[in-house]
Amino acid sequence: MRASRFLFATLRETPNDAEVISHQLMLRAGMIRKLASGLYTWLPMGVRVLNKVEAIVREEMNKSGALEVFMPVTQPAALWEESGRYQHYGPELLRFKDRHDNPFVLGPTHEEVITDLARNELKSYKQLPVNFYQIQTKFRDEVRPRFGVMRSREFIMKDAYSFHANQQSLQETYDVMYQTYSNIFNRLGLDFRPVQADTGSIGGSGSHEFHVLASSGEDDIAFSTESDYAANVEMAEAVQVGERIAPTQDLQLVNTPNCKTIADVCTYLKVNAEQSVKALLVQGIATEDGQIPVIALFLRGDHELNEIKAEKHPQIAAPLNFATEEQLATYGLNPGYIGPQGLLEKGLTVIVDRAAAVLSDFIAGANEAEKHATGVNWQRDAQFSEVYDLRNVVEGDPSPDGKGTLQIKRGIEVGHIFQLGQKYSEALGCTVLGEDGKPLTVTMGCYGIGVTRVVAAAIEQNYDEKGIIWPKTIAPFHVAIVPMNAHKSPRTLEAAENLYAELQGLGYDVLLDDRNERPGVKFSDLELTGIPHRIVIGEKGLDAGTFEYKGRRDTEASHLNKTELLAKINA
Amino acid sequence: MRASRFLFATLRETPNDAEVISHQLMLRAGMIRKLASGLYTWLPMGVRVLNKVEAIVREEMNKSGALEVFMPVTQPAALWEESGRYQHYGPELLRFKDRHDNPFVLGPTHEEVITDLARNELKSYKQLPVNFYQIQTKFRDEVRPRFGVMRSREFIMKDAYSFHANQQSLQETYDVMYQTYSNIFNRLGLDFRPVQADTGSIGGSGSHEFHVLASSGEDDIAFSTESDYAANVEMAEAVQVGERIAPTQDLQLVNTPNCKTIADVCTYLKVNAEQSVKALLVQGIATEDGQIPVIALFLRGDHELNEIKAEKHPQIAAPLNFATEEQLATYGLNPGYIGPQGLLEKGLTVIVDRAAAVLSDFIAGANEAEKHATGVNWQRDAQFSEVYDLRNVVEGDPSPDGKGTLQIKRGIEVGHIFQLGQKYSEALGCTVLGEDGKPLTVTMGCYGIGVTRVVAAAIEQNYDEKGIIWPKTIAPFHVAIVPMNAHKSPRTLEAAENLYAELQGLGYDVLLDDRNERPGVKFSDLELTGIPHRIVIGEKGLDAGTFEYKGRRDTEASHLNKTELLAKINA
Repeated sequence: MRASRFLFATLRETPNDAEVISHQLMLRAGMIRKLASGLYTWLPMGVRVLNKVEAIVREEMNKSGALEVFMPVTQPAALWEESGRYQHYGPELLRFKDRHDNPFVLGPTHEEVITDLARNELKSYKQLPVNFYQIQTKFRDEVRPRFGVMRSREFIMKDAYSFHANQQSLQETYDVMYQTYSNIFNRLGLDFRPVQADTGSIGGSGSHEFHVLASSGEDDIAFSTESDYAANVEMAEAVQVGERIAPTQDLQLVNTPNCKTIADVCTYLKVNAEQSVKALLVQGIATEDGQIPVIALFLRGDHELNEIKAEKHPQIAAPLNFATEEQLATYGLNPGYIGPQGLLEKGLTVIVDRAAAVLSDFIAGANEAEKHATGVNWQRDAQFSEVYDLRNVVEGDPSPDGKGTLQIKRGIEVGHIFQLGQKYSEALGCTVLGEDGKPLTVTMGCYGIGVTRVVAAAIEQNYDEKGIIWPKTIAPFHVAIVPMNAHKSPRTLEAAENLYAELQGLGYDVLLDDRNERPGVKFSDLELTGIPHRIVIGEKGLDAGTFEYKGRRDTEASHLNKTELLAKINA
Repeated sequence: MRASRFLFATLRETPNDAEVISHQLMLRAGMIRKLASGLYTWLPMGVRVLNKVEAIVREEMNKSGALEVFMPVTQPAALWEESGRYQHYGPELLRFKDRHDNPFVLGPTHEEVITDLARNELKSYKQLPVNFYQIQTKFRDEVRPRFGVMRSREFIMKDAYSFHANQQSLQETYDVMYQTYSNIFNRLGLDFRPVQADTGSIGGSGSHEFHVLASSGEDDIAFSTESDYAANVEMAEAVQVGERIAPTQDLQLVNTPNCKTIADVCTYLKVNAEQSVKALLVQGIATEDGQIPVIALFLRGDHELNEIKAEKHPQIAAPLNFATEEQLATYGLNPGYIGPQGLLEKGLTVIVDRAAAVLSDFIAGANEAEKHATGVNWQRDAQFSEVYDLRNVVEGDPSPDGKGTLQIKRGIEVGHIFQLGQKYSEALGCTVLGEDGKPLTVTMGCYGIGVTRVVAAAIEQNYDEKGIIWPKTIAPFHVAIVPMNAHKSPRTLEAAENLYAELQGLGYDVLLDDRNERPGVKFSDLELTGIPHRIVIGEKGLDAGTFEYKGRRDTEASHLNKTELLAKINA
């Protein structure tokens, strides 16, 4: 590609409304432009990257044995009524009527459509397993679209849906998809982690998210220093560490004036927060007569409640709600300064986190205003109903698989594989003839990759103050050639043209920067747009038989002969 | 691909609701399935073809120098209000509101969005010309979607939009696109004609449609037997043939009882319709005082009025309307039996088609009930205002370029190139800085290919009673290998596997039909799905060192050695 015939829509200034670095750089590098809130046009520089990501995803999906299909963006509402999601999906599901007043939706996902297809086309267990995928435009009417293509309303997704005669077959395809996703993100040149994920309200029995590690990520990922273990922090198990030792202190009440938080108390008392417990009073499941029991949760003072873990406890209401003053009053409790002492006796369920349960001689609320207790000990001073994993893991916690300790980094979710089970096949009546001649409800899996989001995530992981640093497999161009003073030096231009032809012949995507711009402008643009290799052709080099080469991550240019140059580009 | 791992969703029966052959065969071959009216899911067999068409379109567009972009399906209504199309487009433009009650449309085309992009990104005439294209999902809310993907509501289109400093530059890019489209349809293996087209209400100065010739086409295409001339019949000029000779007959009135049409009259009088003229009384442009003048059109009895040509006459109202009895009465005329004699004298404008104008001694209405005139001659018996091209061309007419005569075939429009001029750039204020330093309104062209429609059109042109006959460049598979009795003959299976690996290694898309089905079922499926080459591997052939080969258009199989076989497949 000759730069003079390409749209170099680079911007010097960082646009005001772009918060995250990928959004800023995609605008500045001329990859995307905003059409309306959450709607982006991909410019030529962006499409080149997008097409490369799509090609890698398609190749690996085909290799996995998945079959490509292509489903409409618009979907009849009737199918969503069958699955029950028409009512429950919320306003992210954009609903509209066509000219004949028939209700439709813009597809945010395609479980209904593919299950409808499968119930019509799949007749026998002999046709299973089968895995259908597509690379296609989705629409989610986000209330607050942001971060450019990271959370846009219209986006491209690779979604796949597999159909099985039983759970074992689903597990096999799930494992193949796990490996396929790993292959895809490896080929994309990204540092990623497959992490155990919560299956949430969608149900199902197994789920992994694939996260690109980047400091701007919205999710916290915990992973082992010494094994493959990785999980979203909301899912990572906090295992018990150590055993409780015998009490050495007596219980004492101390004044803690104006100490609102456990941190205040520990500072005031000059003790470590690790030696304290904090109380969280939450609502239990309503009884048959409509009463809401209060449940007291105790965590170590320095730990955070993991709401998802708490919501999984059978006595705790989901979504999690804190108890009201009225509810506390029925137990004779005032909010604030609550400690575990005597709570069980008052009729509360008391659940203690594993880390809080192994403390001895700890600090807790005194159940009196402006007072705390020191030297508190379980059993002797306070009883509990149960020990439970209630907290978020923190760095340094032991890995739940027993190997190494946990590190925590932020991640951007770019893929998700999910064992759906029979949620949709039951709702839509997707059965095949089983081996026993009887109808068999199929078991399903689904597997998504946010194709447009991958592009943004790759940038979040690979940039510096000059701009984007593309992994080589998805760079818009592999190599840029800059002839110096080409309009004055026919010899330079000729050498540049020759190298351009030669590198293209070798299969590289080459940009010949023949624009009538100063070298500084060209160099800035090439760095901003993240092209991995830059070759400058000038008179001096031609005399010396060398090329000025600079890799995108290099701080200095080097002068290479042809063989060295080709080796660099091929590296 | 192993057929056992592919979705062979073939149907034996022709679906009831499929009218045209491509729709029937796409359903029967398992290429598409209907999701809702005008909405189709592409199955794996269809996606393979679709992806090949897309790849050819993309390659040729890139070769032409066009730059790929990707615009959203959803578009803000505000842009359509700027262009004036929000009100005028009609109900095919699907309008909806998002969760914040902002109005949007599902894009049936992208002139507004690309012009908005261009006005923001293009600053100088130096950036011109530039041609942006995309391959993307469109939505048109057709009142009566039909013919499968030929006229669906959601479809894939390659649309391109070029921007220019002047008309000459537009013409240059237009010519490049003309050649690019020819390259594309040639590579797709289709018999097509680029035809001059009416620019219609959209305005602009130049337009060609690309039609795939097929008897089921909706358009009539006239093309020369001896030159490249081709035009939609609605556009093809009917040139004058021959000169008028001197009268030889006297004018006579004859009774023509119960003759309602000119055909009736000619049959009754035993003369050829070519020797008669028929009258069409139409409304002229209203005068300032609101009067509608009547204009009399005369055509040869065997010719058809071309309404589009008539509407282009400056005195005739568009759209074309026939005169009412009241309007005729103001001239003292009764409908029926109208001839040209004395009309001009009564104050009517009389316009005669070129072919009618060269007649002598012809038959016409007598302006009396149940009577016609014979031996009518222009000038002596009847005067006219003007000779004008009013009729549809017919087979055998001379080609307007003077080379050969016209043939007429039916065509399916699959592409359209169009000189838009400044319609959108003026409406949206798309200007660049001109060479003279002043703002310059850009001149635009647009270029569309119906990607999904191409697939159907290819079938309309290439099928037989057994099914589809794919052009080799877009066949879902190039070659199918059928091992006979593979489960009983390990030797056959091994030979099939070896050939499968060998042909794949040579770059062919190969289907190994390893399904547990009778050979007859496999052969039917392979013919129905249109795979160009079929190779059967059996014990006998293995003994003889030959392969049973049958091309999709062959009536008989032949037995070939490996070299002959490879030559056939490579042909």
